[in-house]
Amino acid sequence: MKIIRALELEGKSPYFRALQTGNSPRIDMDGRPRMMLGSNNYLGLADHPLVVEGARKALERFGTGSTGSRLLNGTIDLHLELEAEIADWYGTEAAIVFTTGHQSNLGTVGALAGRGDVIVADSDAHASLHDAARFTDAQSVRFRHNDIDNLAEKLTAAAKRGRPTMVTVDGVYSMEGDLAPIDRIAEVCLEHNALLLVDEAHSVGVFGPDLTGVTELYGKADTTPLRTGTFSKSIASTGGFAVGSHDLIDAIRTNGRAFLFTAAGVPAAIGGALAAVRLIRSAEGRERAERCLANARFLRDSLASLGVPLIGPAIGPDGAETVTPIVPVIVGESLRAFAKWHELYEHGVFAALAHYPAVPLDRALLRLAVTAEHTFADLEEAATSIHTVLEPAVERRLVA
Amino acid sequence: MKIIRALELEGKSPYFRALQTGNSPRIDMDGRPRMMLGSNNYLGLADHPLVVEGARKALERFGTGSTGSRLLNGTIDLHLELEAEIADWYGTEAAIVFTTGHQSNLGTVGALAGRGDVIVADSDAHASLHDAARFTDAQSVRFRHNDIDNLAEKLTAAAKRGRPTMVTVDGVYSMEGDLAPIDRIAEVCLEHNALLLVDEAHSVGVFGPDLTGVTELYGKADTTPLRTGTFSKSIASTGGFAVGSHDLIDAIRTNGRAFLFTAAGVPAAIGGALAAVRLIRSAEGRERAERCLANARFLRDSLASLGVPLIGPAIGPDGAETVTPIVPVIVGESLRAFAKWHELYEHGVFAALAHYPAVPLDRALLRLAVTAEHTFADLEEAATSIHTVLEPAVERRLVA
Repeated sequence: MKIIRALELEGKSPYFRALQTGNSPRIDMDGRPRMMLGSNNYLGLADHPLVVEGARKALERFGTGSTGSRLLNGTIDLHLELEAEIADWYGTEAAIVFTTGHQSNLGTVGALAGRGDVIVADSDAHASLHDAARFTDAQSVRFRHNDIDNLAEKLTAAAKRGRPTMVTVDGVYSMEGDLAPIDRIAEVCLEHNALLLVDEAHSVGVFGPDLTGVTELYGKADTTPLRTGTFSKSIASTGGFAVGSHDLIDAIRTNGRAFLFTAAGVPAAIGGALAAVRLIRSAEGRERAERCLANARFLRDSLASLGVPLIGPAIGPDGAETVTPIVPVIVGESLRAFAKWHELYEHGVFAALAHYPAVPLDRALLRLAVTAEHTFADLEEAATSIHTVLEPAVERRLVA
Repeated sequence: MKIIRALELEGKSPYFRALQTGNSPRIDMDGRPRMMLGSNNYLGLADHPLVVEGARKALERFGTGSTGSRLLNGTIDLHLELEAEIADWYGTEAAIVFTTGHQSNLGTVGALAGRGDVIVADSDAHASLHDAARFTDAQSVRFRHNDIDNLAEKLTAAAKRGRPTMVTVDGVYSMEGDLAPIDRIAEVCLEHNALLLVDEAHSVGVFGPDLTGVTELYGKADTTPLRTGTFSKSIASTGGFAVGSHDLIDAIRTNGRAFLFTAAGVPAAIGGALAAVRLIRSAEGRERAERCLANARFLRDSLASLGVPLIGPAIGPDGAETVTPIVPVIVGESLRAFAKWHELYEHGVFAALAHYPAVPLDRALLRLAVTAEHTFADLEEAATSIHTVLEPAVERRLVA
């Protein structure tokens, strides 16, 4: 990360930029009004009056902090209400609430896999799943991103040695916005008797008839044993959860070190998450999810019509093109990408930049992400700025 | 943890009891009024109007969630203000704020130690420090709790092999409330050129002229390179921090996976922590710290005068007896301790129970912890309840 420090010295780093406002579409960042196109506030709930009210009531009733672990003095009624709400939502026997999404994966994998086990993770899975695997005494293996044959090979190898196996994938991949083919993954896991964990971090609130995520979109919600998720995207708080059978969730609750040895989230975070989950389960949630995806479609179309090179759309169930809230723009190699990011920032648009090693060396991305609160006018304006900034490259591409 | 599930089935588990109120001295838990003697709300700030106000203002201005990592879209002005405030308080070049205290240790140790290094941790250090060491590629070694000769031996062994070494200790040990002799530890680290990290989780807000923790109490604040702390005790929020030189903090900020790959804390958590830190640095903070320790002394004296067996008081600088907010009552072997815990709970007092493997098999503890908000009358009442519950054992001890 030496390059980051060098860019920071020049005032051109895309990282650690401070907001003077919340994560709405129109923000103040570094003291200037800009458009936010780099959040994970997909449903636009982070300043929703009902979610703010849920957080405020929790703060007023339960105070500013729980000052302890869930195990000891940190569990408040809101935790139990939230766990019951999430279990009901996901149609599982049980749910468990963690203090961060990162800790959800650490606590879940760490509680369930150990010496003698094998964890097979998608190579592009979120850092927290890779960390989770590494922090156990299990053998950690990766399969090529979304490559089902490669997954089957890894599972066959593990089965030959009679090793209990866990497979970990993201529902929606954070950088390129593509989906895991959960139907085929679930099938292969069933064949090889492997425990499948799907992290719905970027898909909860967005996909499936009940908006529980990509597993539901693929019709595999009832047969997938273990799913995790985060509150820090559509749910507009911080924290996370796992859902599954009583036995699995109990094992996490009593063995997950990243669950047991950390303080509970502040009451405002739990109260906010509970209000957001209830809102997502209402008609307004469905409407917001549709608006979010309509916005993503509009932004993709606007950029494509200007000739801006994009990744995707993603492929969903039955090979259908599926738009996700993440719209990745291909910028090229890393140094050019840093320069282009800064030009766009000067144009008043904040986007996330994904560069090596998060993506291949020659394929840095502007990771755009829409929310339900963006207007088409916002997105048209952003598309024009992006086109203006990237135009010379687009022309070069046309000539070449 | 099978015993926990068995106790839960009987309704007698000391764990995961839910609060219907905040962590003030008088709580509702499991639907009944009780006295809270098992929190870490040492200064009683979790329902302080100024801290609640700090959290509320942050919620209203910045929303319910940041929906992103500090690296990307999750840094708000309050993070920078809080980091500047903490660095000023600790008199260091820099500070960094994490989403949980657990992640503070994971992110700090993980960023600074790696293959070829040695981490030497006190055997009784907090789980997060042991996890932190284990999750690096460094060699992880433990020295016997507070045994400076043993620490020196481990450091000599590491130095012989020319291995860069980090030493990790707690300032106050959470279960028995004893202090690390930071003067001698710092000296041995200096002799062996080892990087010392002191986790001030249970001592921030309580010890030292500026209330920064045990390192300051021992006069070693200026020469200890690295200290971490949590917001989930005296600071009455959730989150954590590390303080040190620009170079160390920058290395954590750009390499700490538990910092980079997790969402920022909710604005209410950051705003609450900032208000609490400012309050701790005011005259009221000093007064609350003194009240907290006076309460601990009163509870110790009350219990001792009733013949209840206690651990401590701790030994501080110059071998002086030093009371900490933690008052550990010896209950004996684990099964008896579970029964006694439940009797006390029926008497209306919630305490934390520490049993094997947190403490030796035959020395389970009721870990009492006072706050600045307890009155002497509260504590006298609690001491009487504890004595009543433990009395038969006390008599047996006198006979034996």
